[in-house]
Amino acid sequence: MTCIIEIISIGNELLIGQIINTNAQWIAKYISSLGGIVRRINTVRDSVDEISSILRDTLKRNPTFIITTGGLGPTFDDKTLKAIAVALNSLLELNEEALAMVKARYCNYKKNITKIIELTPARLKMATLPRGATPLHNPKGTAPGVIIHIDSSTIIALPGVPEEMKAIFEESVLPMISDSIGNLFVHGRYLKVTGIVESEIAPLIDATMHDNPDVYIKSHPKLRSHLELHFTATSKSKKETENTVEKSIKNISQLIYEHGGTIEEF
Amino acid sequence: MTCIIEIISIGNELLIGQIINTNAQWIAKYISSLGGIVRRINTVRDSVDEISSILRDTLKRNPTFIITTGGLGPTFDDKTLKAIAVALNSLLELNEEALAMVKARYCNYKKNITKIIELTPARLKMATLPRGATPLHNPKGTAPGVIIHIDSSTIIALPGVPEEMKAIFEESVLPMISDSIGNLFVHGRYLKVTGIVESEIAPLIDATMHDNPDVYIKSHPKLRSHLELHFTATSKSKKETENTVEKSIKNISQLIYEHGGTIEEF
Repeated sequence: MTCIIEIISIGNELLIGQIINTNAQWIAKYISSLGGIVRRINTVRDSVDEISSILRDTLKRNPTFIITTGGLGPTFDDKTLKAIAVALNSLLELNEEALAMVKARYCNYKKNITKIIELTPARLKMATLPRGATPLHNPKGTAPGVIIHIDSSTIIALPGVPEEMKAIFEESVLPMISDSIGNLFVHGRYLKVTGIVESEIAPLIDATMHDNPDVYIKSHPKLRSHLELHFTATSKSKKETENTVEKSIKNISQLIYEHGGTIEEF
Repeated sequence: MTCIIEIISIGNELLIGQIINTNAQWIAKYISSLGGIVRRINTVRDSVDEISSILRDTLKRNPTFIITTGGLGPTFDDKTLKAIAVALNSLLELNEEALAMVKARYCNYKKNITKIIELTPARLKMATLPRGATPLHNPKGTAPGVIIHIDSSTIIALPGVPEEMKAIFEESVLPMISDSIGNLFVHGRYLKVTGIVESEIAPLIDATMHDNPDVYIKSHPKLRSHLELHFTATSKSKKETENTVEKSIKNISQLIYEHGGTIEEF
């Protein structure tokens, strides 16, 4: 079974262009390198209606995993857990395991900060999860990640702070996704092509992909000086994956030379 | 009327994390600085089904503008125009105005490249638009942008190459969006806050936003060493917008000092 992932990035700061969505790119690159398929990346603002609405729409497409980032913290605009509960017609309840994680983190801080830190409502919020959810240990911050299984999909909610998101992903999410993907090999290569414009290379790509149906070739024009061609193939055999890419590169190279272009590998 | 914009970014290269979505951030920042609201940023792969499906879903939400980037070029995986036609139950047809733009661009190239360039199917594709669409001059490349009005929404399709996307946006899209937004002023300020953690500042933000309903305050924890607070307000009066932000900064500053935090502006 193909492992299909959709990413939902949550946060007004992304929609006003204040920050760039490095989290989504990081996750997408990681998953693709393992042979998983990221089908969509959606960005919505800090609104229970928006987040729950997009979660419902996403669940209808039955992805294997839905990964959300952002909105797990203590402030008023951290609304992801509430929105998951709304999307699933579920309730929020204090989760003892999550509470222990939040407490442990504040005990840690206390050693450095010296003043007394209480479990205020803002802090309890991070341990109040949708019913049926399990917290994921956050090695770098306070808000635990959250995982919840819904029919054939699994929702994984991660914080928006990149170092916390990455730490939870690598510790708890990666093993689950790797298991779901199984042993797949992904092989990719780039060629730099000069002396031929994109509209001339288009039919050559068509012909090569027709003759090599297991490879995907994408062209990227670079400031009109040259083109980059990106070749990828995924299969259960390392050798087969590499052969598919090499054969298609050989095929298209010949066609490019015939059309007066030149090739550099990089 | 509020000007609501949704962005649809198209391209497998975004979903495999090969490149980061700088186009969406650039557009979102530009529109937000004018007082427009970017409600969603969605990224889908080069698939007619995926693009037409998300276009249909987006149209149901009636945004003022839907801006797509990517998929207007000559290669097999440039599928945006076909997908727009499918989403609107419309036909694709050769557009004479777009054809003139594509021809003019190749005449330009010809001066430099010396060999004869013909209007191949791959090139004609860039001038084959959904019925009722109008091409937008591309000052930096071959594929014209495309605009089409559907009920109360306007779809604007831009190329994915950043320099082409930006050139068409500034020449043709910006005037339309500015007109739709009207004269709005946006004022934003940042504060750097130390000595107080995010969960302690959360209730202070709540109180300040309660007393200053026209301001939006967002906190961003920065590697646990400090917090950034971002204040924004939008209104028809420059003076009023600035006053709203200044008053809320004064309010929260007092609360932060009372809680032992310190503030730096930047």
